[in-house]
Amino acid sequence: MQDKEFLMIPGPTPVPQSVLLDMAKHPMGHRSSEFSSLLSEVYNDLKWAFQTKNEVFVYTASGTGAMEAAISNVVNKGDKVLSLVIGNFGERWAKIAASVGAEVEKIQVDPGQAINPAVLSKRLKEDVNKEIKVVTMTHNETSTGVTNDVQTLCAMVQEHGALSIVDGITSVGCMPVKADEWGIDILISGSQKGFMIPPGLSFLTCSEKAMKAYEQCEHPSFYFDFKAYKKAVNDNSTPYTPAVNLFVALHTALQMMKKEGLENIYARHARNAKAVRAAMRAMNMPLFVEDDEIASKAITAVLPPEGITVPQIRSTMKKDFDIVIANGQGKLVDKIFRMGHMGFVSDRDVLSAISSLEATMYKLGHKFEVGAGTAAAIKVLNEAKQKALV
Amino acid sequence: MQDKEFLMIPGPTPVPQSVLLDMAKHPMGHRSSEFSSLLSEVYNDLKWAFQTKNEVFVYTASGTGAMEAAISNVVNKGDKVLSLVIGNFGERWAKIAASVGAEVEKIQVDPGQAINPAVLSKRLKEDVNKEIKVVTMTHNETSTGVTNDVQTLCAMVQEHGALSIVDGITSVGCMPVKADEWGIDILISGSQKGFMIPPGLSFLTCSEKAMKAYEQCEHPSFYFDFKAYKKAVNDNSTPYTPAVNLFVALHTALQMMKKEGLENIYARHARNAKAVRAAMRAMNMPLFVEDDEIASKAITAVLPPEGITVPQIRSTMKKDFDIVIANGQGKLVDKIFRMGHMGFVSDRDVLSAISSLEATMYKLGHKFEVGAGTAAAIKVLNEAKQKALV
Repeated sequence: MQDKEFLMIPGPTPVPQSVLLDMAKHPMGHRSSEFSSLLSEVYNDLKWAFQTKNEVFVYTASGTGAMEAAISNVVNKGDKVLSLVIGNFGERWAKIAASVGAEVEKIQVDPGQAINPAVLSKRLKEDVNKEIKVVTMTHNETSTGVTNDVQTLCAMVQEHGALSIVDGITSVGCMPVKADEWGIDILISGSQKGFMIPPGLSFLTCSEKAMKAYEQCEHPSFYFDFKAYKKAVNDNSTPYTPAVNLFVALHTALQMMKKEGLENIYARHARNAKAVRAAMRAMNMPLFVEDDEIASKAITAVLPPEGITVPQIRSTMKKDFDIVIANGQGKLVDKIFRMGHMGFVSDRDVLSAISSLEATMYKLGHKFEVGAGTAAAIKVLNEAKQKALV
Repeated sequence: MQDKEFLMIPGPTPVPQSVLLDMAKHPMGHRSSEFSSLLSEVYNDLKWAFQTKNEVFVYTASGTGAMEAAISNVVNKGDKVLSLVIGNFGERWAKIAASVGAEVEKIQVDPGQAINPAVLSKRLKEDVNKEIKVVTMTHNETSTGVTNDVQTLCAMVQEHGALSIVDGITSVGCMPVKADEWGIDILISGSQKGFMIPPGLSFLTCSEKAMKAYEQCEHPSFYFDFKAYKKAVNDNSTPYTPAVNLFVALHTALQMMKKEGLENIYARHARNAKAVRAAMRAMNMPLFVEDDEIASKAITAVLPPEGITVPQIRSTMKKDFDIVIANGQGKLVDKIFRMGHMGFVSDRDVLSAISSLEATMYKLGHKFEVGAGTAAAIKVLNEAKQKALV
């Protein structure tokens, strides 16, 4: 059915109508006072979303651009970078660090696992000469649906003295992340996830310690240069021509986020993730990440039951119900499917996705009690809302 | 008056309504077959716009991002780069080359002048040891309204053996640029000029010779990496999450451009520039670039007459007629104003801008024959259209 498609992938995510319509307005001049006052609000609201007193830079680039910004502004050729890798996006940090000539060491776990803080602690304690300059990590690993305990990991990095660089692309605006309180030195995110707008902008905030490392950087990227963006934020401006219409969209989306409140946003993501997981268990659909403690609040990875394939599930969901869910990535292609529930996703959307998945699995001949998934999700959502009222 | 603002600045430029509305559609998944087939058309149409058989890469970034891409994929630390500088944007090439550690030499002229091909020829002939690896230049220098003779300059660079890197941000889709025929090694452009969509995308095409230089590049940028984008174009894909909605907008705009035809687009820009220049002369408004041969087809820089200031002219145009014209940049702030006539600008828009400028200058007490500017523009437009019919 035309115009009915609904994205439940890990980005792009659904965009509110008011955001789409504001984005469709004629672009304004990026050096106008109107745009400058819009920027002033956007920059302030981003500090709130990132829970930081420091400037949040906005790059006209996708999340990978902000990742390159993070590395290229503080890492020199030959620097030692420790990359904590739990999936494709953790691996990307290692690749970018290598691309600028860093000496990269990895702590790697199997897909579906999180970093064990004890392993990092041991490695950092061994580094008595403080050779490790930077530790990179992923908060929410979208490729597997696993969340690292960034608060604990960053505290360890801070104690050691290295810089922590955190990919919060699918965590900021979805689950608690406190840049300052947790001592994160560089935290990045992207527009098409928790921020509910289309892809094309990415965000970065950095600590005073990271700015000091920048001062020692021999060849920071010109396009992503920290100093140019820091100055721009303080001038309510941008260093180069920004994606004006996406900034207008972001401004509208941030108003919506503030109205809902961060705690409510986090609670919505938490209960929706819990509802999806309960539904999968009730439907005899094996979760890729069994441990609820490390399971993502923004995306759920699921293994297909025996005899049914990931492409069958994805194409039936698309064809019969106009819902797009994601395949696995890399070695996990056709091994798992991933259902995104981040950003502009309501309880109703989750119920609609689960009931459609029930219909899909029923059609494909999976053995389960039809209706049990939806029932489990309903109970979780109800319980979470009752608790919130207490 | 609300919603009446019309941009006649050098970007963002006016955007067609159909483009805005297509851009406002819900984002589609960037790994879907629908998006892939849209990409296939976009990539083909860009080859047409750039007049090249090679792939045109699309970066989710503003024009400066594509500039960084051009340099960071072919220039190593210590390489010798010759930058031809006729204004701010020519200077930007030199800055970016310096930022990656290149040894930068400049050929610089006063604002309002173009590069004299004889000067480049002499310098390249002196370089008997072929130390110059790259020559950067600006096709249309937006800060001054001057166009370089890129065809002649690139032929010289080709004969020498160095790589030519050309900023075509405000020239591609506005005036003739033939990447292959002119032997341009790297040609870049941006979305918010001739391509008639909002800012946020930039384009780059490179020759086989430039790809060979890339192979020798020690630390190409990860986000802008040539090889990753070349592969993506051939797979009708993108390496990282693209600004999906801007791609949809670009697809619509390219359909419009093809319908109009490149020759007609170039002719429209040429006659509108000529009309603006004739009007300024008829109004006793001194042109910053007197020589018609080197004057830009996309933007016209004008000196305020004695006793009247640039801020007075700009604010009256904005307040009374909702037309935004640009100030000068850098040392030219308040010394010149710049009227953009690039992209989605019709003959009617040019007449509307000129008649509004006449009203503005009349109000501000400038001595001239009121109506003479509009009359001169009408005659130029009429003559150009008559000639086109012959």
